[in-house]
Amino acid sequence: MAVTGPEIERLIQLLSKVPGLGPRSARRAVLTLIKKRETLLSPLAAAMAEVAGKARICPVCGNIDTVSPCSICADGSRDPAVICVVEEVSDLWALERAGAHKGRYHVLGGVLSALDGIGPNDLNIGGLIEKASTPEVREVVLAMNATVDGQTTAHYITDRLEGLNVTVSRLAHGVPVGGELDYLDDGTLSAAMKARRPF
Amino acid sequence: MAVTGPEIERLIQLLSKVPGLGPRSARRAVLTLIKKRETLLSPLAAAMAEVAGKARICPVCGNIDTVSPCSICADGSRDPAVICVVEEVSDLWALERAGAHKGRYHVLGGVLSALDGIGPNDLNIGGLIEKASTPEVREVVLAMNATVDGQTTAHYITDRLEGLNVTVSRLAHGVPVGGELDYLDDGTLSAAMKARRPF
Repeated sequence: MAVTGPEIERLIQLLSKVPGLGPRSARRAVLTLIKKRETLLSPLAAAMAEVAGKARICPVCGNIDTVSPCSICADGSRDPAVICVVEEVSDLWALERAGAHKGRYHVLGGVLSALDGIGPNDLNIGGLIEKASTPEVREVVLAMNATVDGQTTAHYITDRLEGLNVTVSRLAHGVPVGGELDYLDDGTLSAAMKARRPF
Repeated sequence: MAVTGPEIERLIQLLSKVPGLGPRSARRAVLTLIKKRETLLSPLAAAMAEVAGKARICPVCGNIDTVSPCSICADGSRDPAVICVVEEVSDLWALERAGAHKGRYHVLGGVLSALDGIGPNDLNIGGLIEKASTPEVREVVLAMNATVDGQTTAHYITDRLEGLNVTVSRLAHGVPVGGELDYLDDGTLSAAMKARRPF
């Protein structure tokens, strides 16, 4: 049942589709937005319209940016010899926030998943093989999530890269920095023990 | 550290101020919004701009609507003799969704709170007294939250309404419909027992 104007109901309905918000929190959010009309609602509307017009998927790596190619691919100071392969743009952003990688990226756009019916042709694997075939690329870092699907995808890509003149590496498994052993699962502890290093 | 275009970073920053979203969920939301540009991002930007231009606070009751006075105040079929007093617009909407009230409303815009320094002059209490003084109003239903501040405000308003020709009532306390006794607090159980009714 509509309790307010149709324009406001429509905004609530659209906002409830944003991940992280549901019908109830969207309703609460809209009330706050209307109260903060000048400082939040209007700027947000303008920012959304601007991003809708300007956001681009980088044709080189798959990152999302407002320039094309993206600022990472266009940055000449980054090492083109090392390509870090990630599942999604959010993973790329996480690695960038950590400043963990100084090379280039390649976004797959998902992982292989028999359950969800996602095969190699649904992911941007061809583009990666192509890049890895160029002489300037020396290393491919597989930074997939440590899930079954992520690791399956990593193995599949490793097989596809065989025969090319690149080193294939993956992120280390181990104890998270700041983590307590007592709270870690057996798999992580075994992996950390196996990969132990001289102190 | 900015990992993408400044327009996208600005959208993330603005979106993280929406209640229910934080910096991390705003980042995830923006990625989804960009992926669903045609179906979600652009319509959302347009809906926000429209609401920013059209939303009005009803001068009669304090409801938020796109027409002024609001559709509830303008609805001639609603009983003008019964005014339901609520803290916030969200409470008004909740009562409307439930179809629990067929009269008019009055939004206070908050509750008295010594801790937050909110006194009677910060709330729209004068307007309520004015309405209650008109001969057509016969009943004022106090629908404040069952919190200490809400009940303090209810008592204050009851005092202010004394001497006027109106009945003052409040929402019943008791067991929520569908609730289990074992999980209810002592205060609610005591209130439900005291207010027991013939079966």
